[in-house]
Amino acid sequence: MSRIYFDNAATTALEPVVLEAMMPYLTTHFGNPSSIYSYGRETRLAIENARKTVARTLNAHPAEIFFTSGGTESSNTAITAAIRDLGCKHIITSPIEHHATLHATEHLYHTGEAALSHVKLLPNGHVDMEDLEHLLKTSGEKCLVTLMHANNEVGNMIDLQAVGALCKQYGAIFHSDTVQTVGHFPFDLRNTPVHFITGAGHKFHGPKGVGILYINENVKISPFIHGGAQERNMRAGTENVAGIVGFAKALDMAAENYEKDSSYIKSLKLYMMEQLEKHVKGVFFNGDPLGRSLYTVLSVSFPKTEKSEMILFNLDINNICASGGSACTSGADAGSHVIRAINNNPNQVTVRFSFSKHNTTEEIDRVVEKLKDLI
Amino acid sequence: MSRIYFDNAATTALEPVVLEAMMPYLTTHFGNPSSIYSYGRETRLAIENARKTVARTLNAHPAEIFFTSGGTESSNTAITAAIRDLGCKHIITSPIEHHATLHATEHLYHTGEAALSHVKLLPNGHVDMEDLEHLLKTSGEKCLVTLMHANNEVGNMIDLQAVGALCKQYGAIFHSDTVQTVGHFPFDLRNTPVHFITGAGHKFHGPKGVGILYINENVKISPFIHGGAQERNMRAGTENVAGIVGFAKALDMAAENYEKDSSYIKSLKLYMMEQLEKHVKGVFFNGDPLGRSLYTVLSVSFPKTEKSEMILFNLDINNICASGGSACTSGADAGSHVIRAINNNPNQVTVRFSFSKHNTTEEIDRVVEKLKDLI
Repeated sequence: MSRIYFDNAATTALEPVVLEAMMPYLTTHFGNPSSIYSYGRETRLAIENARKTVARTLNAHPAEIFFTSGGTESSNTAITAAIRDLGCKHIITSPIEHHATLHATEHLYHTGEAALSHVKLLPNGHVDMEDLEHLLKTSGEKCLVTLMHANNEVGNMIDLQAVGALCKQYGAIFHSDTVQTVGHFPFDLRNTPVHFITGAGHKFHGPKGVGILYINENVKISPFIHGGAQERNMRAGTENVAGIVGFAKALDMAAENYEKDSSYIKSLKLYMMEQLEKHVKGVFFNGDPLGRSLYTVLSVSFPKTEKSEMILFNLDINNICASGGSACTSGADAGSHVIRAINNNPNQVTVRFSFSKHNTTEEIDRVVEKLKDLI
Repeated sequence: MSRIYFDNAATTALEPVVLEAMMPYLTTHFGNPSSIYSYGRETRLAIENARKTVARTLNAHPAEIFFTSGGTESSNTAITAAIRDLGCKHIITSPIEHHATLHATEHLYHTGEAALSHVKLLPNGHVDMEDLEHLLKTSGEKCLVTLMHANNEVGNMIDLQAVGALCKQYGAIFHSDTVQTVGHFPFDLRNTPVHFITGAGHKFHGPKGVGILYINENVKISPFIHGGAQERNMRAGTENVAGIVGFAKALDMAAENYEKDSSYIKSLKLYMMEQLEKHVKGVFFNGDPLGRSLYTVLSVSFPKTEKSEMILFNLDINNICASGGSACTSGADAGSHVIRAINNNPNQVTVRFSFSKHNTTEEIDRVVEKLKDLI
């Protein structure tokens, strides 16, 4: 029985053509990009071309793009810098952020470097913009607002422009964890009031272990990782050349195929909603799946029964990959902090299905068929 | 004219058999290692097997090995943790450390979190152990001693056992940047009094963008990068699975071939010293090349002339890769802080030649022949 992979929000398959672009840097082109001789300049050029590709895709300036080891490092860098370099004394975030943001902000709260507030959520899980404005207005300190562009578990998206405008109005620094949207949505950073955004290659068919941090040209920060002069003194350490080249290639492909891929993947999500509603009694969709939402993610709650409590285990036995929440936390048995925050119903069990261009409606039919048995 | 690559201390060629071991994780085995389903467990297993291989090679416990994005991140993690988690208030380092250490320690000094002392060097560039003891004895604070195992520019090595014993005697935490020695020397960490060591895959024919941090089981630190529960809550971020597998494979191969490779590479270094002394007038070797020294690195100073000042440029034109110092700093025109610290002779120009198992005496003959013209 062939595997059905419905966990693309956790990670995606590396695209063969992306690997192909990486291969020279895993074989013949191994020079250190910081070396001064021509052989090092070949890899330096590959990195700078990758930076230009990424910048063009996001409509940013190449000098605003920094390569890192992934989304988590990028978010840690931005959040830490906002407090330590940009004078923010108060962090405003939400209870449904990724742990990269939650734990980084909690760390700065525990060290006494920043106050910490969590914005209220509306019943559908969206950020309560009135509460956000209230927090900003009453803060009395320079604020860092860190809100993810799209929630990795339920798919809810913020309005980057609206949150950015509010931040601007109140002189706040704005960081958005865009790990689920870079490579999945168009960006126009020159016309978006955001100071930091992040990306991770493996979320859009690029390699694991490489990410970006966009730093708006109007903010100047110190490095998070100190050392050599790489990334214009902003991120030390010999560059992961193959990873960087792969990141840019995957992003370039994603941008090129955005219209086609996004409408196809969205149709899969809608089809699965339809089929589940038709065939599985008591099914409930978390968040705002038909509103401002990731087209890649569908969070489904099922009535809790002895059978449904074993649902992830049974999906696995049937070679169906889906998750209870974020992969980054699935090691822990604590359950999902996101689901608890927006739909704390002890009589439901929740499964996240997340799609890519490689999935099909036939796979959805097979999964729904199986779910009928398992619920 | 084929390229001669004598800059293996900057980076090495990825070994084809290492790439082969990585390939499944760049193609079919793309699951997220933190996922709970079997498909994720395959990659989890690959990481845990890599950890066991690394631990076995270094004679450490697998629970003491953490995968990172490279040597620089590893050193930043260790140095920061020693101050913020382990109560060290005074950093003792040397003026010839890699910038990963120098800049990380300077940062902690500038934030007021630690005092900072630099141990004296002997005329041959070795650490003055009497001065180190004097600094430890008179400190009055809990110290972090951070001294690199082997200097990346001149090759000088410290005696890990002796420095570790001194640290133990004075209750200091001991971190050693072992980026130039992991994969090049045997380690016996169970019997070495060191709290932290580091490694970077690309220094021993593994991939770029992956490293390790060894944390002795007797010290408990907080993560440097906050977020998901990866690496047992010690290093957040989706794991670079292919990189980790490649790191372990390269280290395993290096350990297996240590006797053969090290004696061969050492013979190349000695041969080059001999040939240079015979054929190039006024040549001088920095550090202690025949004493406690890396067998991979030869730092050569030539008399400064109009011609020799252009030596790196001319070597490059002749397709010979060598460097003025560390690749991580070669972007800057500031010259080498290491050479300045141990041999501040304005009438010399310095070139670092560094070798791998892929180099030959014929290449050395060609380089020496060329150097005769260029000096």
